[in-house]
Amino acid sequence: MDTYDVIIIGGGAAGLTASIYTRRKKLSTLVVSINMGGQTNLTEHIENYPGYLDLSGPKLMQLFDEQSKNFGTEFVFGKVAKLEKRGTGFTATLANGEAYKAKAVILAYGKVPRSLGIPGEEHFLGRGVSTCATCDMPLFNKKTVAIIGGGNSALEAAELGSKFCAKVYLIHRRNEFRGDPVTVDKIKAAHNVEMVLNAVPVEVRGDKFVKAMVIEDVTTKEKRELPVNGVFVEIGYITQTDFVKHLVELNKSNEILINEQCETRTPGLFACGDVTNVPYKQTIISAGQGAIAGLSAYNYLQKLEGKPTVKTDWA
Amino acid sequence: MDTYDVIIIGGGAAGLTASIYTRRKKLSTLVVSINMGGQTNLTEHIENYPGYLDLSGPKLMQLFDEQSKNFGTEFVFGKVAKLEKRGTGFTATLANGEAYKAKAVILAYGKVPRSLGIPGEEHFLGRGVSTCATCDMPLFNKKTVAIIGGGNSALEAAELGSKFCAKVYLIHRRNEFRGDPVTVDKIKAAHNVEMVLNAVPVEVRGDKFVKAMVIEDVTTKEKRELPVNGVFVEIGYITQTDFVKHLVELNKSNEILINEQCETRTPGLFACGDVTNVPYKQTIISAGQGAIAGLSAYNYLQKLEGKPTVKTDWA
Repeated sequence: MDTYDVIIIGGGAAGLTASIYTRRKKLSTLVVSINMGGQTNLTEHIENYPGYLDLSGPKLMQLFDEQSKNFGTEFVFGKVAKLEKRGTGFTATLANGEAYKAKAVILAYGKVPRSLGIPGEEHFLGRGVSTCATCDMPLFNKKTVAIIGGGNSALEAAELGSKFCAKVYLIHRRNEFRGDPVTVDKIKAAHNVEMVLNAVPVEVRGDKFVKAMVIEDVTTKEKRELPVNGVFVEIGYITQTDFVKHLVELNKSNEILINEQCETRTPGLFACGDVTNVPYKQTIISAGQGAIAGLSAYNYLQKLEGKPTVKTDWA
Repeated sequence: MDTYDVIIIGGGAAGLTASIYTRRKKLSTLVVSINMGGQTNLTEHIENYPGYLDLSGPKLMQLFDEQSKNFGTEFVFGKVAKLEKRGTGFTATLANGEAYKAKAVILAYGKVPRSLGIPGEEHFLGRGVSTCATCDMPLFNKKTVAIIGGGNSALEAAELGSKFCAKVYLIHRRNEFRGDPVTVDKIKAAHNVEMVLNAVPVEVRGDKFVKAMVIEDVTTKEKRELPVNGVFVEIGYITQTDFVKHLVELNKSNEILINEQCETRTPGLFACGDVTNVPYKQTIISAGQGAIAGLSAYNYLQKLEGKPTVKTDWA
């Protein structure tokens, strides 16, 4: 088994950027990921990635991927089940048993969608219930959907739904949206989006496919059934840190704690992007962090061999 | 005098990204800067800005600028000479006496080029001595130039020089380059670049224009005169913090200390990009930080008015 200079776990904005930086430093680099593009893929229109006035998330991630491959990054699809440090090196074992070794590891695998935890949700997943509007909204052409959530993901799902669906219910437990005011304005202007505020979902109903969503008013506790064909759960994400918790510190949100150089508490183990305690969760922020993690991994390997490092300041 | 929600000092990658984020939150935003594009402008080819496989620095910054203006950012050209906090607001006074007020300020004005401090350098500035290869190298078509430095800026200047000039001397005080190995390889392959290692510049000579550069071998102390028409000083940058030092903490490199939310020690005053202690100095890192600073400024203003803030985590 060959030993890579760097294994990057995660193929989203953070991981792909880290790989661009490690490859430009000629470090042999393997990206292990369950997908290519991560959370950015879930956004239909990105208007706030500097340098692109309007681009879809999947298109932007395709460009990151192409750039990384141009510099010679290797890729393997899979989920890392175990990460061990032995001496100065690391071994990453995938769920299928394949194992890869590296001198340094960068954790960049982001988050997984949070679920509502209500009756019917899991049962109808893939049969009307979705956590990816970008992927699945086109399946609901001229149909009725409910979108659950109050942040940018939910708002963007509603905007997308307004283009495809006969009717969109946007269900939010508060009376105000957390998302960008410009996106809120767009949705208010859409004639086929009905905002249902101060309401929480309590059950997904159907037969073979989803037929209805039951919601409850948070103040009156009154329940009502909305006839829908689809339910989009857009209420955020959680971290999965079980396989690394012996090597890193976590905060109360279960995010991996890093310093300003993207170092974890284990030498040679770095982290970047949404899986860390970096504030806000944005493609450009994850990419910036990926660059830092890539350069820090390079400096770590250079120091191991007594070679010159990249300066961190202008001194 | 109107009061802006946010004044951003600096129009490079960090400042422009911050303005994209504040404008998308509908905050009235003024960017004050001595130029548009900052340090990124000085790079001829950027291959490591994720999403663009190869683009010139000025072109990338033009895209940032266009994106920021599309969202309604206002711009004024000028140098901020004084920044004062009065109550919860700030007043920024330019060198020409114009003053602007804001509820929050983001410092994003980067660095200024470091000088060699040798005889003739200042005298011949603009008459053969330059600190911007991207701007000035084309003026030395078929001529001979000396480039001073060992980092990426010097290497990129040498690569650019190899395309225009009859002869390029790359003068570096060490015997190894700090820059990217891929760029070093490109320069080694160029037939018209002569690397002069272990050497320091001691004098720039000429009459109306530069005629020669005197260098000294660091080990033998032997001096020799290289006949050159141009001298590119590419030895890094320094911070200018006199006008803000009463409001922020500085580290030993004279960089503004920030926490992970880009906050300084003064409430309402944020900083991002090369002027801060963020490690490494890269366009993508500055842009990521600009997004954080913009969102943190928004959260600060929302909190002042008791309104909802953008979440910093996935909790």
